Amino acid sequence: MRLSRSFLPTLKEVPAEAQIASHRLMLRAGLVRQTASGIYAWLPAGLRVLQNIARIVREEQDAVGSQEVLMPTLQAADLWRRSGRYDAYGPEMLRIRDRHERDLLYGPTNEEMITDIFGQMAKSYRDLPRNLYQIQWKFRDEVRPRFGVMRGREFYMKDGYSFDLDYQGAVDSYRRMMLAYVRTFQRLGVVAIPMQADTGPIGGELSHEFIILAPTGESGVFFDGAFEDQDWLGEQVDQENSDSLQRFFDRMTSFYAATDEKHDEVRWAEVPHERRREGRGIEVGQIFYFGKKYTESMDVSVSGPDGKPLHPEMGSYGIGVSRLVGAIIEASHDEAGIIWPDSVAPFRAAILNLKPGDAACDALCDRLYATDPQNLLLDDRADRAGAKFADADLMGHPWQLVVGPRGAASGTVELKRRATGEREEIAADEALARIAGNR
Amino acid sequence: MRLSRSFLPTLKEVPAEAQIASHRLMLRAGLVRQTASGIYAWLPAGLRVLQNIARIVREEQDAVGSQEVLMPTLQAADLWRRSGRYDAYGPEMLRIRDRHERDLLYGPTNEEMITDIFGQMAKSYRDLPRNLYQIQWKFRDEVRPRFGVMRGREFYMKDGYSFDLDYQGAVDSYRRMMLAYVRTFQRLGVVAIPMQADTGPIGGELSHEFIILAPTGESGVFFDGAFEDQDWLGEQVDQENSDSLQRFFDRMTSFYAATDEKHDEVRWAEVPHERRREGRGIEVGQIFYFGKKYTESMDVSVSGPDGKPLHPEMGSYGIGVSRLVGAIIEASHDEAGIIWPDSVAPFRAAILNLKPGDAACDALCDRLYATDPQNLLLDDRADRAGAKFADADLMGHPWQLVVGPRGAASGTVELKRRATGEREEIAADEALARIAGNR
Repeated sequence: MRLSRSFLPTLKEVPAEAQIASHRLMLRAGLVRQTASGIYAWLPAGLRVLQNIARIVREEQDAVGSQEVLMPTLQAADLWRRSGRYDAYGPEMLRIRDRHERDLLYGPTNEEMITDIFGQMAKSYRDLPRNLYQIQWKFRDEVRPRFGVMRGREFYMKDGYSFDLDYQGAVDSYRRMMLAYVRTFQRLGVVAIPMQADTGPIGGELSHEFIILAPTGESGVFFDGAFEDQDWLGEQVDQENSDSLQRFFDRMTSFYAATDEKHDEVRWAEVPHERRREGRGIEVGQIFYFGKKYTESMDVSVSGPDGKPLHPEMGSYGIGVSRLVGAIIEASHDEAGIIWPDSVAPFRAAILNLKPGDAACDALCDRLYATDPQNLLLDDRADRAGAKFADADLMGHPWQLVVGPRGAASGTVELKRRATGEREEIAADEALARIAGNR
Repeated sequence: MRLSRSFLPTLKEVPAEAQIASHRLMLRAGLVRQTASGIYAWLPAGLRVLQNIARIVREEQDAVGSQEVLMPTLQAADLWRRSGRYDAYGPEMLRIRDRHERDLLYGPTNEEMITDIFGQMAKSYRDLPRNLYQIQWKFRDEVRPRFGVMRGREFYMKDGYSFDLDYQGAVDSYRRMMLAYVRTFQRLGVVAIPMQADTGPIGGELSHEFIILAPTGESGVFFDGAFEDQDWLGEQVDQENSDSLQRFFDRMTSFYAATDEKHDEVRWAEVPHERRREGRGIEVGQIFYFGKKYTESMDVSVSGPDGKPLHPEMGSYGIGVSRLVGAIIEASHDEAGIIWPDSVAPFRAAILNLKPGDAACDALCDRLYATDPQNLLLDDRADRAGAKFADADLMGHPWQLVVGPRGAASGTVELKRRATGEREEIAADEALARIAGNR
């Protein structure tokens, strides 16, 4: 994209309403714009990040055999009356009445709807197991929305649901999803550590939150730093095999990790001193096994192998897609701006033309830009070099290709890696090769 | 995808509530499921079609330099009070009150919001022209929702907005978008004919509806059949050049086309007899120039070259993405089911294993399937051949690769083209080659 024609407005001023770094940077870098309390419009750069995250989430969900569906944002209140949650849910639920005085609500989550849809479609035990997910806008009417998209009211979320015949099947589904999650977060370029979470009255140990480290996080966390060095993308797991899934799960949970609520000083003492990490964290995902809670309360069953009705075992699996945009920035920024991981950056690299109008600069910039106009940002504005450097740092492009009159004459650029600040004078083609394949 | 593990439920019965073919077929082929009056959940096959349409729309919008944004589904009522439309809009607007008693609404369209966002970001004439679009869920509280997704309440739509400095710029933007539209519809595999539409009090001839022929369409249409033979993808247009855009526009509008409201018997008589086409049509898109209507009523301006404030000229451009799923089916089906154009089909082809358990059949099917598991559907169910043929015809896969024990032994399949019914016994690899590159 050519910056001179784009809708990528950056702000020099620090917005007064933003209390945390990610919120400030999202506004200053022109990623989002608030349109009502806790409700945001996504501008082109922000939307690209959101779409990149969604794409990676989708690929990893597909890779464990989950199938994508898309449920509507508005739901009939009657559906929630069947499960008993309509009255139980607090004022976070946005309740709506349509022109025929029928009660609707803006879905804060979808257990009821997916259970109902599944129940209408699945008739026999042969229709299980199934795993379904969607990526869709949801709404929670937070009393005090804050921290930008981290605690907004309208938010984008992946929610998935598994249906199994029995407990072992549900456990396998849970572990398969845990594999998808660690792979997803690794590809997103963040460390998100699974921590055991409360399961409420259902009990058991099948609930984990995935937490990204960030100083502004809502909860204190303690974990074994060895987790950060694991390569889950290289992990060999046979997804069809319960034993293999269990081995993966055991290895994963062998690393100590707990929020302050669940912190265990005895186990903590066993973690080698140099590997102990303490900090604060932001929840970006949760996986949860809840058995027959909804299939029983909504009376959804299939006929079992013996002909008798059978209530499927369920689990639900969430990833906060819009929240992740803020959480990644919380975990990856500096004084100058955002530092995007390659996989989610709105543009692979920015090309900075330090002297638009100079024939050599323009020619070299155009040549670089033409190699991938969709994924490169060309700063061709008639502006000071300083302003271009500042905007590129602020927007957080993983690479900057700086083209000045001297270098352009000899076909060289200054290549800057945003994350490390390293700069190098190299031939233009070498710079292109360097930024390729990093995504 | 393996059908035995998928969530692609087909129905044998014809649903009583569905009055038109596309609605019946969408329910029977398992594309959608109604969750409340006029509100639908998209099951995996339906969602794939929706995503394919959205992808093509997106690519053609990007190709004319429009930039994607994403606005929230809920909007503040105050925004609509600024334009004066809050009170003017009828009961189709879904009005909502949040926990703090603030008035919100579920956006039926976004002129106000995009004008506001643009106005906050654009300061000078140098920030124009810009063209922004989004693909997002919208809501219109239809009094009698019907025809499935064709006239639903929650619907998926591409809406775009252009901002120009002057009338000529706005005209260029309009014609550029018309080019994007004809290309989009051609790629979607449908004939959608632009017909001049009412512009209301603004007047002029800058409003067109794009109409797909279908017997159940809402309006009568008359058009010159020569339009159907044009190749808009091959049309050479210099998008940066007003004259070139005008030549394209003149050629496009040289083909007679009118709804019954605007039908002109005199011009109709000039169309050669053998090229006259009459029928009914469904509106799937509209483009509209409305000048300064919103920039004036909402007082949005930029500073002009002379330093004086200047209200940008606007146009808006819609495509009914979810409606198109139904409209394409209306235009392309037979007694047996849907006939998907290659570009939007949920799967490129179905592989029908007529004898699961037969070693040769299973091996050949697995080999075919492994070439592209994401985009091929393998019917590996333990079911009668007749049921597989019926489901494949119903679901409308462009190609069927039928694998029976006799052919499998010699490595041949029966290749069936859904649109024509043509069948051919050919080598498996030749069949793969035939279905490739059709998308």
